[in-house]
Amino acid sequence: MPRRTPIVGLITDFGTSDTCVGQMKAAILGRCSRARIVDVTHEVPRGDVLAAAFALLEAFGAFPKGSIHVCVVDPAVGTDQARLAVRAGGSCFLAPDNGLLFPTLERLGRAEARRLSSAGASTTFHGRDVFAPAAAHLAAGKSFARLGPRMGRIAGLDWPRPERSQRQVRAEVIHVDRFGNLVTNLRPEDLPSGDLVFGIRRRAIRGLTSTYGDVRRGELLVLVGSHGMVEIAAREDSAARRLKARRGARVTVTRG
Amino acid sequence: MPRRTPIVGLITDFGTSDTCVGQMKAAILGRCSRARIVDVTHEVPRGDVLAAAFALLEAFGAFPKGSIHVCVVDPAVGTDQARLAVRAGGSCFLAPDNGLLFPTLERLGRAEARRLSSAGASTTFHGRDVFAPAAAHLAAGKSFARLGPRMGRIAGLDWPRPERSQRQVRAEVIHVDRFGNLVTNLRPEDLPSGDLVFGIRRRAIRGLTSTYGDVRRGELLVLVGSHGMVEIAAREDSAARRLKARRGARVTVTRG
Amino acid sequence: MPRRTPIVGLITDFGTSDTCVGQMKAAILGRCSRARIVDVTHEVPRGDVLAAAFALLEAFGAFPKGSIHVCVVDPAVGTDQARLAVRAGGSCFLAPDNGLLFPTLERLGRAEARRLSSAGASTTFHGRDVFAPAAAHLAAGKSFARLGPRMGRIAGLDWPRPERSQRQVRAEVIHVDRFGNLVTNLRPEDLPSGDLVFGIRRRAIRGLTSTYGDVRRGELLVLVGSHGMVEIAAREDSAARRLKARRGARVTVTRG
Repeated sequence: MPRRTPIVGLITDFGTSDTCVGQMKAAILGRCSRARIVDVTHEVPRGDVLAAAFALLEAFGAFPKGSIHVCVVDPAVGTDQARLAVRAGGSCFLAPDNGLLFPTLERLGRAEARRLSSAGASTTFHGRDVFAPAAAHLAAGKSFARLGPRMGRIAGLDWPRPERSQRQVRAEVIHVDRFGNLVTNLRPEDLPSGDLVFGIRRRAIRGLTSTYGDVRRGELLVLVGSHGMVEIAAREDSAARRLKARRGARVTVTRG
Repeated sequence: MPRRTPIVGLITDFGTSDTCVGQMKAAILGRCSRARIVDVTHEVPRGDVLAAAFALLEAFGAFPKGSIHVCVVDPAVGTDQARLAVRAGGSCFLAPDNGLLFPTLERLGRAEARRLSSAGASTTFHGRDVFAPAAAHLAAGKSFARLGPRMGRIAGLDWPRPERSQRQVRAEVIHVDRFGNLVTNLRPEDLPSGDLVFGIRRRAIRGLTSTYGDVRRGELLVLVGSHGMVEIAAREDSAARRLKARRGARVTVTRG
Repeated sequence: MPRRTPIVGLITDFGTSDTCVGQMKAAILGRCSRARIVDVTHEVPRGDVLAAAFALLEAFGAFPKGSIHVCVVDPAVGTDQARLAVRAGGSCFLAPDNGLLFPTLERLGRAEARRLSSAGASTTFHGRDVFAPAAAHLAAGKSFARLGPRMGRIAGLDWPRPERSQRQVRAEVIHVDRFGNLVTNLRPEDLPSGDLVFGIRRRAIRGLTSTYGDVRRGELLVLVGSHGMVEIAAREDSAARRLKARRGARVTVTRG
């Protein structure tokens, strides 16, 4: 009977110039050579837990159930912060206890957390010495409960949420992608009904559009991106450049 | 009986900072975990179909027959442009119908094309929602014909070709690689016989050289690169920097 | 009986914009589809053999015995420099004979070297045409001795070593990582006993610290990094930026 092939997704702020990511992969494959490793991104800005949390939130839905998500953005490595394994929604998540997993777990609901041991690990490279062995343990089909003692509570994250008043919804840009698309913290269910006007950087954009082809080249539009969040884009152009907008830029939604 | 292990090559303009490439890979492996995925490049300049076409032309020959090449550089995503699966030379090619495959198919000859369905896909991320499932379908050994209806004609590409007159061949630089080598659109069969002089940026370089070791350090030379195209290089130096040449720079070949 | 799954690590200066790395991987998997390929780094500065040697030294210990390490940083490609396969410490190493393997082999001790043939290879892309086939040959479990004739002596490397006088140990920074940590050429056994003071760029840092958590945020510290070398770091900050230090910066160790 063929065994299930476990998929291991990696999110780090290690970059790819140094050898850290390669060492993590070698440490996983050396313990479980069947694991299929997928780089989600290693370009999270150094220590930027919020950006890592967004990357996981955006990407995890593309992975099949049973996948193992390893997220190592850990400005507090070398302190007594815990390292977690969490089981939720049929998949497993490994990360420092710094809130990185919070938005994803909130979406998945009911979760069980374990505290990983770091006995014998280097004090500076938990990606290789703590998280990789735990990922390999799970990839090999071994017991989740054996990873460590149960943790009752895990850290939250100061994740920006849309604010709704009678007149408008106030939101913000939480990610700017390579194409200059501005991803907001709005989900479709956060939007008022009726005709909408989106305001950003003193510009008003009317209505939700379903696809790029519905506007002219260079024109701004608002659509629900492939990650399920509301996104401000420009057809064959960069909305970020056009609007001089970055992460944190304010977005308002009013009825038009 | 062991099944064939399918190799899937990826060419995109997604970069590796965002999670798009990781999502595509997860979407492939979630449907066909035996697939072996190879990143050819994700650094095609945004929407640059010509650069993507060159990357495929340069790389496909290194893959074994039966490989699946997924090429997603698609400035027209969200319009009614078709998405293709093409079978040629014993391998399969998936791409938008924007000419990206043209130079490669021209080299391979006889091809059969199918139009991929995008029913149920996001309107912005066909890499994950249309191309990845089609790649997994093929990687799992399923029917090419089932991918969609036959297409009679696919888009061409304004691919620069050498022009030959009685006095000279006029060509151009189509790619500058990381080492500053200038790859031209000349193939050895485009060259006149006899002693040759290559002209670029008011410099003349005499003769085709067979390898770097035949010239002194820093010296310019012309050779047939590993991709089978004529290339202008400098031993242990950057020809692009030395000649201040970029993509599009004119190259002439005359008999010397 | 399940066959061993061979792990192949890659170190090159090819970058990931061009298609070279993808072509190498296709050439390996086309010959041995069971091989599991790990990118260690492709961002070695062009032709920088010392940086490649450090990357291998840093990373190889994370790989299981029996791994195959392919290192292609080869400013002399196209000359008559030899290409090597070396067996040491239970693993195999493939590289040009330019000293790249030297620091790693020195650590592993007893080694056996073979000279790879390049008959039929392109003269410019040995990564794909010489090293990839040799890696696939080894990954498929075929004979090491068959790779080519035995070589008695391989090239050394002008690898900087700490100098010890009565008053101090003089060392230097050999690598600056993405986080701005300054990796020195000191190993713990190079350090005098007793209380130590580390000098760099007119700053004095007292004592070896065991982990980041032992100092305040932003403070400089010296620790033994996960690679086993002495490293100068700053907690949640860049020591390179704080000290305006780069590769080659002098480091002194005195008793305090």
